[in-house]
Amino acid sequence: MTNNGKVRATLRRLSSSVRPNNIDMNQISFTPIGIIHSPFTETDEMPIQPIGAQGIKGHILIADDFVEGLEDLDGFSHIYLLYHLHLSSSYSLKVAPFLDDQLRGVFSTRAPKRPNPIGLSVVKLNKIIMNRLEIENVDIIDGTPLLDIKPYVPEVDKIENSRIGWLSKNIKEIHSRKSDQRFK
Amino acid sequence: MTNNGKVRATLRRLSSSVRPNNIDMNQISFTPIGIIHSPFTETDEMPIQPIGAQGIKGHILIADDFVEGLEDLDGFSHIYLLYHLHLSSSYSLKVAPFLDDQLRGVFSTRAPKRPNPIGLSVVKLNKIIMNRLEIENVDIIDGTPLLDIKPYVPEVDKIENSRIGWLSKNIKEIHSRKSDQRFK
Repeated sequence: MTNNGKVRATLRRLSSSVRPNNIDMNQISFTPIGIIHSPFTETDEMPIQPIGAQGIKGHILIADDFVEGLEDLDGFSHIYLLYHLHLSSSYSLKVAPFLDDQLRGVFSTRAPKRPNPIGLSVVKLNKIIMNRLEIENVDIIDGTPLLDIKPYVPEVDKIENSRIGWLSKNIKEIHSRKSDQRFK
Repeated sequence: MTNNGKVRATLRRLSSSVRPNNIDMNQISFTPIGIIHSPFTETDEMPIQPIGAQGIKGHILIADDFVEGLEDLDGFSHIYLLYHLHLSSSYSLKVAPFLDDQLRGVFSTRAPKRPNPIGLSVVKLNKIIMNRLEIENVDIIDGTPLLDIKPYVPEVDKIENSRIGWLSKNIKEIHSRKSDQRFK
């Protein structure tokens, strides 16, 4: 099967299961626009953020239906990926994050076991060929359903002076610390 | 009705409509964790990004079920809000963004009419009292359902050198340009 054939098959499978009967306009249900591929096939030993994934390459295959929406994106060097943390089957309001031993409120962490398991990463965009995006600094597990792409715009997204609470203690370890099984 | 009563009632209403029958674990459906409040009750004349909303204050009411997850968040000065662009009832793959006259691929813009209408803003977090978050630099319409909160971590989220494609031409206007009816 070609790559396009594969992504289509995967999306068809996902699609039939994610599309509930749309009985109400207020219903919040999302359908993946593509699949993220990376060298990480297991949740342990993954970098815990893109900063620890410097140079790690991956790619995204976008479903044919949405390829037209990629136009003009290649002018941007960095993009936000919003994706479904699909391996996160439940959530906790207090979690032990990778960079701390204490339990922390889940919204003060980037842990995957969240009430709405949406992941957010800024990655480098190297190239777009048809429906394939070559990306770098990837901290995402292989096979992750992609929900949205947004351009990274420093004028909007770059905060110059910020405090980072409990994280300030161990932030230096973020470059080297790897994930483990705790969020399975 | 108290504020808490109001947010509970709103969430109950949303909740009954957003929770489809969960027949499959792969189904991607989300339930709001709270409601974002702001001075903006109409989509026109809104700032188009937080940078154009400097000093604009708002607040978030979090549903009781999720309040425990807010612990430790008050140490962070800035937070990401992920929310449902609930007024966006359809999408286009090519859109005319506020900062340009040309049609652009939707994924190269922050326009609300996206295949999966998830909004993303970095706002300033001023204070948390119980289930109420006081926020600043709010470019979000009043009554928006909140899906997730993540801490802003410059070590992870701040990109030093980036290119911004078509946006570079008009980026200076982002401070002053207001929205209009085009995304209704």
